[in-house]
Amino acid sequence: MLRIGVIGCGAIGREHVRRLVDLVPGAEVVAVSDYFRESAEKVAEKHGIKNVFSTGEELIASSDVDAVLIASSDSTHAGYVMECIKNGKPVLCEKPLAESAKECEEIVKAEVAAGKRLVQVGFMRRYDTGYAEMKRIIDSGELGAPLMIHACHRNVHQGDGFTSDMGITNVAIHELDICRWLLDDEYKNAQVLKVKQSVLSNRGYDNPQIVLLETDNGCRIDVEVQVSEGYGYDIQCQVVCEKGTINLPDPYAVVTRSNASCHVPILTDWSQRFIAAYDVELTAWVEAVSAGNATGPSAWDGYAACVAADTLMRSRGTNNFFEVKMMEKPEMYK
Amino acid sequence: MLRIGVIGCGAIGREHVRRLVDLVPGAEVVAVSDYFRESAEKVAEKHGIKNVFSTGEELIASSDVDAVLIASSDSTHAGYVMECIKNGKPVLCEKPLAESAKECEEIVKAEVAAGKRLVQVGFMRRYDTGYAEMKRIIDSGELGAPLMIHACHRNVHQGDGFTSDMGITNVAIHELDICRWLLDDEYKNAQVLKVKQSVLSNRGYDNPQIVLLETDNGCRIDVEVQVSEGYGYDIQCQVVCEKGTINLPDPYAVVTRSNASCHVPILTDWSQRFIAAYDVELTAWVEAVSAGNATGPSAWDGYAACVAADTLMRSRGTNNFFEVKMMEKPEMYK
Amino acid sequence: MLRIGVIGCGAIGREHVRRLVDLVPGAEVVAVSDYFRESAEKVAEKHGIKNVFSTGEELIASSDVDAVLIASSDSTHAGYVMECIKNGKPVLCEKPLAESAKECEEIVKAEVAAGKRLVQVGFMRRYDTGYAEMKRIIDSGELGAPLMIHACHRNVHQGDGFTSDMGITNVAIHELDICRWLLDDEYKNAQVLKVKQSVLSNRGYDNPQIVLLETDNGCRIDVEVQVSEGYGYDIQCQVVCEKGTINLPDPYAVVTRSNASCHVPILTDWSQRFIAAYDVELTAWVEAVSAGNATGPSAWDGYAACVAADTLMRSRGTNNFFEVKMMEKPEMYK
Amino acid sequence: MLRIGVIGCGAIGREHVRRLVDLVPGAEVVAVSDYFRESAEKVAEKHGIKNVFSTGEELIASSDVDAVLIASSDSTHAGYVMECIKNGKPVLCEKPLAESAKECEEIVKAEVAAGKRLVQVGFMRRYDTGYAEMKRIIDSGELGAPLMIHACHRNVHQGDGFTSDMGITNVAIHELDICRWLLDDEYKNAQVLKVKQSVLSNRGYDNPQIVLLETDNGCRIDVEVQVSEGYGYDIQCQVVCEKGTINLPDPYAVVTRSNASCHVPILTDWSQRFIAAYDVELTAWVEAVSAGNATGPSAWDGYAACVAADTLMRSRGTNNFFEVKMMEKPEMYK
Repeated sequence: MLRIGVIGCGAIGREHVRRLVDLVPGAEVVAVSDYFRESAEKVAEKHGIKNVFSTGEELIASSDVDAVLIASSDSTHAGYVMECIKNGKPVLCEKPLAESAKECEEIVKAEVAAGKRLVQVGFMRRYDTGYAEMKRIIDSGELGAPLMIHACHRNVHQGDGFTSDMGITNVAIHELDICRWLLDDEYKNAQVLKVKQSVLSNRGYDNPQIVLLETDNGCRIDVEVQVSEGYGYDIQCQVVCEKGTINLPDPYAVVTRSNASCHVPILTDWSQRFIAAYDVELTAWVEAVSAGNATGPSAWDGYAACVAADTLMRSRGTNNFFEVKMMEKPEMYK
Repeated sequence: MLRIGVIGCGAIGREHVRRLVDLVPGAEVVAVSDYFRESAEKVAEKHGIKNVFSTGEELIASSDVDAVLIASSDSTHAGYVMECIKNGKPVLCEKPLAESAKECEEIVKAEVAAGKRLVQVGFMRRYDTGYAEMKRIIDSGELGAPLMIHACHRNVHQGDGFTSDMGITNVAIHELDICRWLLDDEYKNAQVLKVKQSVLSNRGYDNPQIVLLETDNGCRIDVEVQVSEGYGYDIQCQVVCEKGTINLPDPYAVVTRSNASCHVPILTDWSQRFIAAYDVELTAWVEAVSAGNATGPSAWDGYAACVAADTLMRSRGTNNFFEVKMMEKPEMYK
Repeated sequence: MLRIGVIGCGAIGREHVRRLVDLVPGAEVVAVSDYFRESAEKVAEKHGIKNVFSTGEELIASSDVDAVLIASSDSTHAGYVMECIKNGKPVLCEKPLAESAKECEEIVKAEVAAGKRLVQVGFMRRYDTGYAEMKRIIDSGELGAPLMIHACHRNVHQGDGFTSDMGITNVAIHELDICRWLLDDEYKNAQVLKVKQSVLSNRGYDNPQIVLLETDNGCRIDVEVQVSEGYGYDIQCQVVCEKGTINLPDPYAVVTRSNASCHVPILTDWSQRFIAAYDVELTAWVEAVSAGNATGPSAWDGYAACVAADTLMRSRGTNNFFEVKMMEKPEMYK
Repeated sequence: MLRIGVIGCGAIGREHVRRLVDLVPGAEVVAVSDYFRESAEKVAEKHGIKNVFSTGEELIASSDVDAVLIASSDSTHAGYVMECIKNGKPVLCEKPLAESAKECEEIVKAEVAAGKRLVQVGFMRRYDTGYAEMKRIIDSGELGAPLMIHACHRNVHQGDGFTSDMGITNVAIHELDICRWLLDDEYKNAQVLKVKQSVLSNRGYDNPQIVLLETDNGCRIDVEVQVSEGYGYDIQCQVVCEKGTINLPDPYAVVTRSNASCHVPILTDWSQRFIAAYDVELTAWVEAVSAGNATGPSAWDGYAACVAADTLMRSRGTNNFFEVKMMEKPEMYK
């Protein structure tokens, strides 16, 4: 049994605790912590978890804890991950790995110095059976080399305080990771384009926006980002290879015909779209950590997505491609 | 130029005149007639057609007329067709060929006696590119022998005076022809089943009803017939072969996504569904007649559909299969 | 923790043990048994299960066991279920509940005599999100009353010793349950039709065959059954309601375009099609049993499917509908 | 009867003659010409056309000719169009209107000077029922304002001598017109991007390439252009509006299931994709000219597409947007 400590007992943290307790083989949640200690206590009581810590640092240091899952607020991620590396503990950190490329870089350097991959970033889409099958087909070579990706990320709603940049760091970030992964390639150039704005979302942030990327191999990627007021939560991804195209499927949904129209419902709630992927993600992470391996999205992947996001934000308003400047890739991540 | 006389200047007749005048190469409409002479005169004036006849018989007999198209009321079809055979004139008769199997049989015998195929029945679906491609695939043998057909015929509206039997003779008649043609087979057994009735169509006739057919080769066919109050005019046809299935496509229609749903519009007006097929049908008929050939649905096909319809009507209410009893197939139609 | 004993450690039993151990909240497997004791011992060792019994009867009687899951060979189901009722233990029995309608009837009577619902039958399709959504739409009434179901069950392969009747009892049995459930109705008439046989499956059993059913409310159901040599494992189900149709979706599958064709892969292995439904089924069962409820497919449902299957088998070769004769429905199941 | 003269009797010219003779109401082909006089004579003989001219100029000047259709080689278009304007004759010119924006501008000025719209450009996609329905939905406003277009133009084959620039002027030119028309907007910025090249098409020209456009209203358009070696002739177009998306449908095509896959065939020959649109285009042109109107794509539309194409070609290799500089729009085209 892998003894896991979970930092952060908000909505996402609670879901992860439930998953680990109920669904993930070989996992045991032995400790929780939260900024609001009461939240952690409630979760501990509900699931019979023995340790409640007031700080993430204590949780990480506890000899009861073999591995750590970080689901606290974004600004605390980098610090906790560094602490895990210092303590030599495997950690699954919800995205983003850190709030700046600089912090990500420090994490990468710390992990390299530690000499061992400890960090996994919570890019759960890689565990969706649709994306996984797309990756399998690309890697099989049956359709030739990939050349382009056309993607869309359309949302219904964002909370208060949302900004144009969060359209990149919180929304398009998923595509920034998944496209790199599908293509097995790094970004060379990036820009974000302003688009005629939807009058439905006159809320002080850009909506929609278009992300353009070029990879080292010359692949081109376009991502339409509707951060809010879309007709549904709709995620589209098409990889264009030399011999054909591959499309992410729409979710399994009942088709009706009525009123002179054929209808397929579209989700409106993001939390349902990749829900099965979270189960697979946590199961794979526990399995890998228990076996002493690291198989999922790495600190390097978290860093790469973050650098691309930074570059996009800098390009805003210029109508120009900006170079995506990354540190040299350490041997450990190749 | 094939000099054509058109009998019947109602909605369908007028459409056919327009087609022949405007779209069909090698065709000229030289004569029209209608029970209401005024209707024929209007059409003649509009299209500059020189002859207007008071009766179909005169039109058929006219030396100006090379070939005849019958679009008059159903009860007059058989008589005019017999007249055409007597005059040795090629004729395209809108479905049904006649109102009873007995009359159809007489037509077949007369045509056989005349020693030459003169009659074509207006089963225009055979000229739809979808059905035609299904036929091509079946005949190619690439999917093995056909074993079953699942079909649906769903309507939005019927005029006053509609009856349960008209659900067979005017609606399912299209499937009775198209299934025989797709399978290149004759019917052996048939029955129509009563179904829980839609409360939306409490109009004194059965709706829906289900037609079951067995062919000489043992193929099974089921046809759902919604004569009215359906969600649209929706025609479905799936042929199940030994190695796979073939589906009639839905019409070419723009797909929209809005309001948390993906929508494909469905037609509500039958007249739009196979409209291109009418153009192909008339063009092919004119071409064949001009070349001295007969290529389309024959008097035998009209007879076979009629015998099947008769058998279905006799089976109503019994929950039993009835044998489809046909005369021996004359050499001419093999 | 619900302490569960699993009878039968073949492929399906092992899968269920894994599910209960790894994925199902609130469940603990405390005992296993198998006709081949060694199989049970292996499973016990792998999952650290403390009790291995030589007979199902001992397992059922054990005071360590709160509830029983039966995954042994078909012929043993009825006996074990009766034993569970005698011991007052909740039981989930893989389909079929018994091999004859008579045995099912005895189980129903025994359960009624026991005064409490203890038996659930493993019709797992009810837990598929597609079928569940179809049921929700029907029950919502938004499309009016259901009138017809068109279904297909197409398989790639059957083991040796397969028979025409097994095409009903082992294959179509799923549709016999799911259609009753979707319509909330009982069968009145049934027949199975012989169809032109596929030359690909000249193996001494009927393939394909067509099942026709009529319900008490007059709904009509047709089920095409390809027991083997189909192009894939393809399950289709369309419910036709007064105002529209509802279709079971095809599985979530990546779409490719290459070689002048758009492709969507079709499964070939039945075990993958409803795999998620098994997880939901067991989770729901454990939850219901733990709460002292019975929510899933009942002994009555097992009985009803069995009576329909018996009727179909009797109708074989007659081309006639046979009446589906059931005992009166006990209050407990209403 | 509109008496039409056709200049150019190559493959496209011959098809247009056939259309005008056979299918288009109210049209008569009274004259043909071709650089190779023999080609014109053959066509004249086949269709019984009375006048054969050695030069397009003579044909245009002939008092027998009411209107002109130009289907000669690209380099001759501009000259013939100017001649038509000079003679005050309505003309339908196959795309491109001219080979340079400068020549297009001269045509526009000449037409404005003539004080009457005489020129229609052969952008036949506007007459496809799919694009037409997309336009209708956009213009209805039911989905709000259009914001973006994602389009693909994928080809199987190009003839010898093809160049990267022809990927714009001969291929993407259709999208350059259709996007302006759908959006009812003009281009402000444009660039073409180089993409990782397909090893399948190592032929000395860029393949694929990506076209990016921004309109005066701020709409963004991306067009993937596979000039050759694609998996089929596949034309995709999605308009993203404030409240939803609209997709050009795939062509009407039979769906088969076999070999563990569902297949929809994709065309490989461009000439089939919009073939019905040509019929509609010519019919609409003849109707409009006969009525003294001008309704189709104008000289201004030909000019606008040409300026955009020129801008794209200038941007090649720069990775920068270039401004699309157009003359002021004359009153006549508003």
